[in-house]
Amino acid sequence: MAKEKKLKPSKELPLGFVDRQEKELLIRDFVISNIKEVMIKYGFQYLETPSFEYTDSIGKFLPDKERPDEGVFSFRDGNKWLSLRYDLTAPLARYVAKNYLELPKPFKRYQLGTVWRNEKPGPGRFREFLQFDADYIGTKNLMADAELCVLISEILEKCGLTKKDYTIKFSTRKLTDELFEMLEINSSDRRLKILRSLDKLDRLGWSEVEKLLGKGRKDKSGDFTKGADLTTDQIKTIKELFKEKTPYADDKYEEGSGSDIRKITENLEAFEFKNYIFDPSIIRGLEYYTGPIFEVNLNFDVKNSKGQIVQFGSVGGGGRYDNLVSNFGNFDCPATGISIGLDRLVFALMQKKDFKIKTSRPVVICVFDKSKNKEYVGILNKLRMSNISSEIYPGEGKLKKQMEYANKIRSPAVILYGDNEIKSGKATLKNLETGNESSIKIEDLANEIKKLL
Amino acid sequence: MAKEKKLKPSKELPLGFVDRQEKELLIRDFVISNIKEVMIKYGFQYLETPSFEYTDSIGKFLPDKERPDEGVFSFRDGNKWLSLRYDLTAPLARYVAKNYLELPKPFKRYQLGTVWRNEKPGPGRFREFLQFDADYIGTKNLMADAELCVLISEILEKCGLTKKDYTIKFSTRKLTDELFEMLEINSSDRRLKILRSLDKLDRLGWSEVEKLLGKGRKDKSGDFTKGADLTTDQIKTIKELFKEKTPYADDKYEEGSGSDIRKITENLEAFEFKNYIFDPSIIRGLEYYTGPIFEVNLNFDVKNSKGQIVQFGSVGGGGRYDNLVSNFGNFDCPATGISIGLDRLVFALMQKKDFKIKTSRPVVICVFDKSKNKEYVGILNKLRMSNISSEIYPGEGKLKKQMEYANKIRSPAVILYGDNEIKSGKATLKNLETGNESSIKIEDLANEIKKLL
Repeated sequence: MAKEKKLKPSKELPLGFVDRQEKELLIRDFVISNIKEVMIKYGFQYLETPSFEYTDSIGKFLPDKERPDEGVFSFRDGNKWLSLRYDLTAPLARYVAKNYLELPKPFKRYQLGTVWRNEKPGPGRFREFLQFDADYIGTKNLMADAELCVLISEILEKCGLTKKDYTIKFSTRKLTDELFEMLEINSSDRRLKILRSLDKLDRLGWSEVEKLLGKGRKDKSGDFTKGADLTTDQIKTIKELFKEKTPYADDKYEEGSGSDIRKITENLEAFEFKNYIFDPSIIRGLEYYTGPIFEVNLNFDVKNSKGQIVQFGSVGGGGRYDNLVSNFGNFDCPATGISIGLDRLVFALMQKKDFKIKTSRPVVICVFDKSKNKEYVGILNKLRMSNISSEIYPGEGKLKKQMEYANKIRSPAVILYGDNEIKSGKATLKNLETGNESSIKIEDLANEIKKLL
Repeated sequence: MAKEKKLKPSKELPLGFVDRQEKELLIRDFVISNIKEVMIKYGFQYLETPSFEYTDSIGKFLPDKERPDEGVFSFRDGNKWLSLRYDLTAPLARYVAKNYLELPKPFKRYQLGTVWRNEKPGPGRFREFLQFDADYIGTKNLMADAELCVLISEILEKCGLTKKDYTIKFSTRKLTDELFEMLEINSSDRRLKILRSLDKLDRLGWSEVEKLLGKGRKDKSGDFTKGADLTTDQIKTIKELFKEKTPYADDKYEEGSGSDIRKITENLEAFEFKNYIFDPSIIRGLEYYTGPIFEVNLNFDVKNSKGQIVQFGSVGGGGRYDNLVSNFGNFDCPATGISIGLDRLVFALMQKKDFKIKTSRPVVICVFDKSKNKEYVGILNKLRMSNISSEIYPGEGKLKKQMEYANKIRSPAVILYGDNEIKSGKATLKNLETGNESSIKIEDLANEIKKLL
């Protein structure tokens, strides 16, 4: 092709995105296979919706702006807007509405998929992450909400955590709804702003959240976020509620938030599930919750790449969203669901547990003479037939370079099969850990290598 | 939350995107697990790059246009442009350039991931698809190119195809490069236009491709694509070359396209791999290839949802791209790789082979009285401990609705555990396939159900 002078493109990744290496990916595969086993056992169907939805289908409306809501990645497509999903719940609601007549009721599905947030990236804050979701669609029965906590806990324990390592915290969105009624805050935009501020409590602490509830807050980078404009008295009321462990007297437990709290507690007891606490400071940042809400918190320290303990927050959470599906049509469709942030969970697991992940690196067959490729392939095929990870040195360097390569990839052994060896019908097997060399008949190579692995 | 009057959002998906159901996903999981096994055996490392890259890093430059090249989904991010990857090769080149000093040379990696094409959607043409890629980076050795064909073939056969079901076709990009020299076509844009036109040969046939090579072509929808403006004589020369099976006399086999063809043939023979043909009409639509190119074609009919045989094209392909990585910096980094389009392969496999995929639907424990949840959970836990897919009816309907639900989800059996049963310590197990009911001691339930599954 004709050469054209070009500027070198960037080798860097955009902020908020990362490359993931083998060890992390293999642990993630292990977590995913545990999830799939648990999901089958619990009777959930496997579903996958696409990355893109119409922007309005995922609840991101375009009132009078040129560009859709921030928070999502959106494109104009002809005369419509498309967005990358920011969670797996909104697309599920769209899917259920679209297929409402054919689906069993209740409908239990799980999904694994990437979600995207077009937010300001920061240390440890990503703009894409892999999520697992399990949902019950079409039931008001709070046994479903309780079972979500049980199944999440079974997944975590299958992945190697003990009961001491995590706690499921729950509350109900009705608590804040009642609070907003009491404080006479009726605008849904303002309610959402307050919820999102309160949701930052574990990360920022009360002193900063109070600013977000009041006039506003300047973050470390100097960016100013306008506050929710609550009065000092209103903020005080919220703080008091949040410090309560049992917000209402027993006689109020028949309705509203009290009823949710009582039923979730009873249902968790029916499952003999103990690893939970009620915590009114659980908020969840999304708008669509209507009832019980959950968060899965880890009880051990998680360190960043510099060895500093980080505010880790939750690895998962969810809740009841009784109105989301019915947004799409004229039917009543209560629902509840839970998610795990898989990248976060894997990051935490890698610190907690010493995973003996087998990253089997290949045995390398050295190349002395390209015209002998047939002979090398003969050995290669024997090893691969015995399911031994193996390769003919794939480059073009001399023997010294080949040995450097084998060491670099942490190969367990190299096979030397030069002219003399070919004549004798034996190859030299060099163990790269011990440095030992031995002369082995071709037909015994696979067995000798298996001993060494 | 205060109610606001809203238009109902769309339940539909944007064109070019689909929801995927359990059966397809389980077959895809089976294919992926085969891929991972083969990749370990062949000594490849597992890598994952993110969905987004800087637009210029993936070779989509912004010369003087307001919006980046069509074909990719791009966003402005501050003063830069980001794009969703359109393949896994360009991000790999960026990754290698970024980590050049630390990587083994050669570097063998595989990746599974979604790619996006912002193209005009049509029947069976998707705008996102899942791809598998295996690449050798940092070697000119054409044994690598040959081994790509061998490993793809091992994956296909592990998935249930026989040697008769597929053929690997190869050519070399040097053939068209030499052709362009001969025809004195030097502009890289024009060369790419011609390559893309020729790549449509299997779908459109010569009569339409001739229009694309000449003045231009109007498609069925009436859209006009401007052609490459070749003369009738030039088009004739191209057609003749494409009909040749061995384009050059033996004495030219030491250089250029001839050398590639000879070496690939010899190397495939060294692997005793027979399932290939040389086919000069293999083109590949991407710009970056520099040497041998491959396509994996299926030899059986594939039908669409209406039962019509479709022009299926290839399930995978790839080739050598010796200049892509070195675009990023001052080093020489030859490379070669191959991809499989997993959605297409799964679609074809589902037609070829009757997969006995176990979509285990849960046994349903019916609910007579919510106050007996503890008793139901007692049975549930016993079944799940025996790894039986099971659930307590998750809805709120009466027994009739519960039976309808169990039938709808194709549950193998329901368990009836009412007051009388609880007293007797036995539950009624109803087989939903035969209709048979039997009274079973609680501790024997799991074993009885296992017999029935």
